[in-house]
Amino acid sequence: MRVVITGGGGFLGRKLAQRILRDGRLTGTGGKPETVSELVLFDVVAPPADETGDERVSVVTGDITDPDTVRDLIAPGTGSIFHLASVVSAGAEADFDLGYRVNLDGTRLVLEAARALGTCPRVVFASSIAAYGGDIPETVEDTTPVTPETSYGTQKVIGEYLISDYSRKGYLDGRAMRLPTIVVRPGKPNAAASGFASGIVREPLNGIDFVCPVTPESQMAIMSPRTVIDCFSHMHEIDGAALGASRALLLSGFSVSMGATAEALPKIAGNRRRGDITFDVDPAIQKIVDGWPKASQSARAERLGFPRDDSIEAVIQAYIDDELE
Amino acid sequence: MRVVITGGGGFLGRKLAQRILRDGRLTGTGGKPETVSELVLFDVVAPPADETGDERVSVVTGDITDPDTVRDLIAPGTGSIFHLASVVSAGAEADFDLGYRVNLDGTRLVLEAARALGTCPRVVFASSIAAYGGDIPETVEDTTPVTPETSYGTQKVIGEYLISDYSRKGYLDGRAMRLPTIVVRPGKPNAAASGFASGIVREPLNGIDFVCPVTPESQMAIMSPRTVIDCFSHMHEIDGAALGASRALLLSGFSVSMGATAEALPKIAGNRRRGDITFDVDPAIQKIVDGWPKASQSARAERLGFPRDDSIEAVIQAYIDDELE
Repeated sequence: MRVVITGGGGFLGRKLAQRILRDGRLTGTGGKPETVSELVLFDVVAPPADETGDERVSVVTGDITDPDTVRDLIAPGTGSIFHLASVVSAGAEADFDLGYRVNLDGTRLVLEAARALGTCPRVVFASSIAAYGGDIPETVEDTTPVTPETSYGTQKVIGEYLISDYSRKGYLDGRAMRLPTIVVRPGKPNAAASGFASGIVREPLNGIDFVCPVTPESQMAIMSPRTVIDCFSHMHEIDGAALGASRALLLSGFSVSMGATAEALPKIAGNRRRGDITFDVDPAIQKIVDGWPKASQSARAERLGFPRDDSIEAVIQAYIDDELE
Repeated sequence: MRVVITGGGGFLGRKLAQRILRDGRLTGTGGKPETVSELVLFDVVAPPADETGDERVSVVTGDITDPDTVRDLIAPGTGSIFHLASVVSAGAEADFDLGYRVNLDGTRLVLEAARALGTCPRVVFASSIAAYGGDIPETVEDTTPVTPETSYGTQKVIGEYLISDYSRKGYLDGRAMRLPTIVVRPGKPNAAASGFASGIVREPLNGIDFVCPVTPESQMAIMSPRTVIDCFSHMHEIDGAALGASRALLLSGFSVSMGATAEALPKIAGNRRRGDITFDVDPAIQKIVDGWPKASQSARAERLGFPRDDSIEAVIQAYIDDELE
């Protein structure tokens, strides 16, 4: 089967590609496991060449807001689509039009191309706990009303409703997951307002001093890269009907403060040379972060067998194991 | 001030126009009452000529999915927009592409044109309790999760989220209301799956036999035309900030069964010649209706001073007073 990952040049897209290549099989449109013969990584920029040496991988670069590009990408024979491409939170907030073009129009093009296949392909959509905002409980749960207070969150929520409606009509077999903040992201900082939650671990471990733009008391709902890739894989493989009519699922993220993260770091880092952490609040970022959930707890995700993390120490260790050694 | 009603040729649009013309004033973008100098009724077809004799009224016919049409419609000087135009529930279910074009793309064009004015105009959007579906309580409340199970409901919910996001950005001052089923609609039956709830009163009172396509036990959350027009007016006039970040408000609809409606009719109709009511279930319509709320109760709407109805007898009497006498 042919599998497409949009945002395949990004951090999560590349991790997901490695996982799919390692597993070698995914459930096909007939409901039976099939061999992955072609894995297409789509993004605005190509991933590093050393990650695409596998003969099953092809790379397509282009603009997800271009209808012809997306139709060509999701060509006949495509069995599954992982739709991860998006403008991140701070980017969609800074450029309203770009956010709607990529995160809403681009998503609609992906869904329309999937529908045009006529085979009801599985579509896994990366949503976000930015779906929640404003006057929300510290821990968001399955029944918490969805009240985004960013354009990014709004666009993700709209994508979820589209996924459910296209699935209800039988045009595709969609699944959307609300991801907590993913920590630790390797590589360079991106434009996400949540970037500091990775930076506070990554930069010091790479010997670079880090200025955290929110208070030590600031808490985030987080999930490790390992766990979120397990969730993507599990979400693709489960029977879509198990999700019910609403194809959007909250994932459980554990809660950690930036102060506790800073304290855990020396315990796990051992003898590595470390950069220093200082705190200097950026009011714009603090405001965005204060509007996000501090933890997420989904009984539905647990019933459906989705994994979760439970300590910042394990998350830091996983980053060291996966990215530094 | 210049006021635009999209869907201005429809039943609610025309009633709303009469109300605005009668009041003569609306709160303008400066927050102070202004005289309505021009009222533009926009629709795919023109309203009856006898309803547009007022010199303040102009009629524009056109396609709401055409960007130039919508930009020309919402011209500089437009102070307020009531966005009622949409493909109804059964129509959007029958023609998926048309529903998304009109109900999503059309709404986006209206919001973009309002944003382009640069004056933060008030925009009142007609949403629907079709926002709720599936496994919902008999009475939906402010905290009930929004889980549409029709394309129409999905499109209305997406419109609400857009209204909130555009309002948050300060591009417009939007307000969305989830309308219960409006009973009694005068005139010819339309393509709405809920049409029978009006037909069961209207047709017999016009001497025509009526076959109700759902069981006598089927309950609906309903609101009279008088009350919903009061709600539109009130929604326009209140301070948008009172709604909070989520600009979407559920309206309270009272619950009535089709059997109780049929029983109330002879008591109110007096000596009028009446058509007979029989029940013959259409499984497709019954299924749609069974997925809708049986009542809606919004403490938030009541706190904000929105009116509601409380008896089918009063609703039938209002139809006789307003439409037959």
